[in-house]
Amino acid sequence: MIKVYGMKISGNCYKVQLICELLKIEYEWIETDGRKNETKSPSFLLKNPNGRVPIIELENGNILRESNAILYYLAEGSIYFGKDKWEEAQILEWMFFEQYSHEPYIATNRWIIRFLNQKDEKKERIAENHTKGLHALQIMENHLAKNFWFACNRFTIADLALFAYTHKADQGDYNLSEFPSIRNWISRIQSIADFAPMED
Amino acid sequence: MIKVYGMKISGNCYKVQLICELLKIEYEWIETDGRKNETKSPSFLLKNPNGRVPIIELENGNILRESNAILYYLAEGSIYFGKDKWEEAQILEWMFFEQYSHEPYIATNRWIIRFLNQKDEKKERIAENHTKGLHALQIMENHLAKNFWFACNRFTIADLALFAYTHKADQGDYNLSEFPSIRNWISRIQSIADFAPMED
Repeated sequence: MIKVYGMKISGNCYKVQLICELLKIEYEWIETDGRKNETKSPSFLLKNPNGRVPIIELENGNILRESNAILYYLAEGSIYFGKDKWEEAQILEWMFFEQYSHEPYIATNRWIIRFLNQKDEKKERIAENHTKGLHALQIMENHLAKNFWFACNRFTIADLALFAYTHKADQGDYNLSEFPSIRNWISRIQSIADFAPMED
Repeated sequence: MIKVYGMKISGNCYKVQLICELLKIEYEWIETDGRKNETKSPSFLLKNPNGRVPIIELENGNILRESNAILYYLAEGSIYFGKDKWEEAQILEWMFFEQYSHEPYIATNRWIIRFLNQKDEKKERIAENHTKGLHALQIMENHLAKNFWFACNRFTIADLALFAYTHKADQGDYNLSEFPSIRNWISRIQSIADFAPMED
């Protein structure tokens, strides 16, 4: 059985939980809380020198880091990844978009506001992130106004990766009522068989 | 022939140039300069609503965005990607590390200092980025002290992705003389057959 080192309130970690549920992959969850510095302990840094969750540990002891690389590893060959190189590249395009243009603004503001309680101290950074986060949401909205899914006309790990923090964006003071196509897409994902909600 | 929309001084764009040279893929380069807002023109935004280069346009008109997704598309099936799912996942792990924990600090400081000439105005942001960039470089150094390459014991697109901005890090005021294993790795890459240098 694989081990997942993760923090339940983290969207990046939830990605791993959700793909395991959807693909019925058995896993042992080892809660590793960044707020308690459990991701910076010497034993954890041996597993991931970058001090971040999620990571997975295979039965042979091999470690894989980076949420979207883990999604790739677990979903490759399943209906949630691509059928050919072009489909796969399009899925990865949205997953790199997620990590570069979305997560640093949407996840980070949720973290600062909801979990660090630093809404006043980090007012300027929050405002700067908010503008960039809105830009990412608008790109998603425009795409979803014309497409049910991000790639391949079906639910893939591109949707899963983007879903994780988008559906909790209100916790970072983003107002999703301005993005009706995103809201419909969120509902579509939540109605997939074997869907498991995020705990937070 | 594929079209590459890119900016020669951009490391993300250089990734695409280099993989084309290594794999002898013919391409037409269409210089698209972000400093002249050419990435925000209406015609370019139709190709990439995120307003970023590089993108590639296939002969059938299909567009692919995100430098590392383009690397995947062009290198999949070649000696520069993985031989099985585990190898591929490890390569992607480092490519996601590059976009999340490396590029935003190393490429961004080079951009601010060398191309925007805002070393004074953005002093605080540069300092904050510098700490995080050093952290990324130290993770690379520690890995390369024990390994010749980032994944699979051979040169892959994981190395290529990390090479692009790392070998120009001095332009963002990072001192690579503190990282001897990184410097040796840079030399190894530069001695690969068909290697093409970055123009800047």
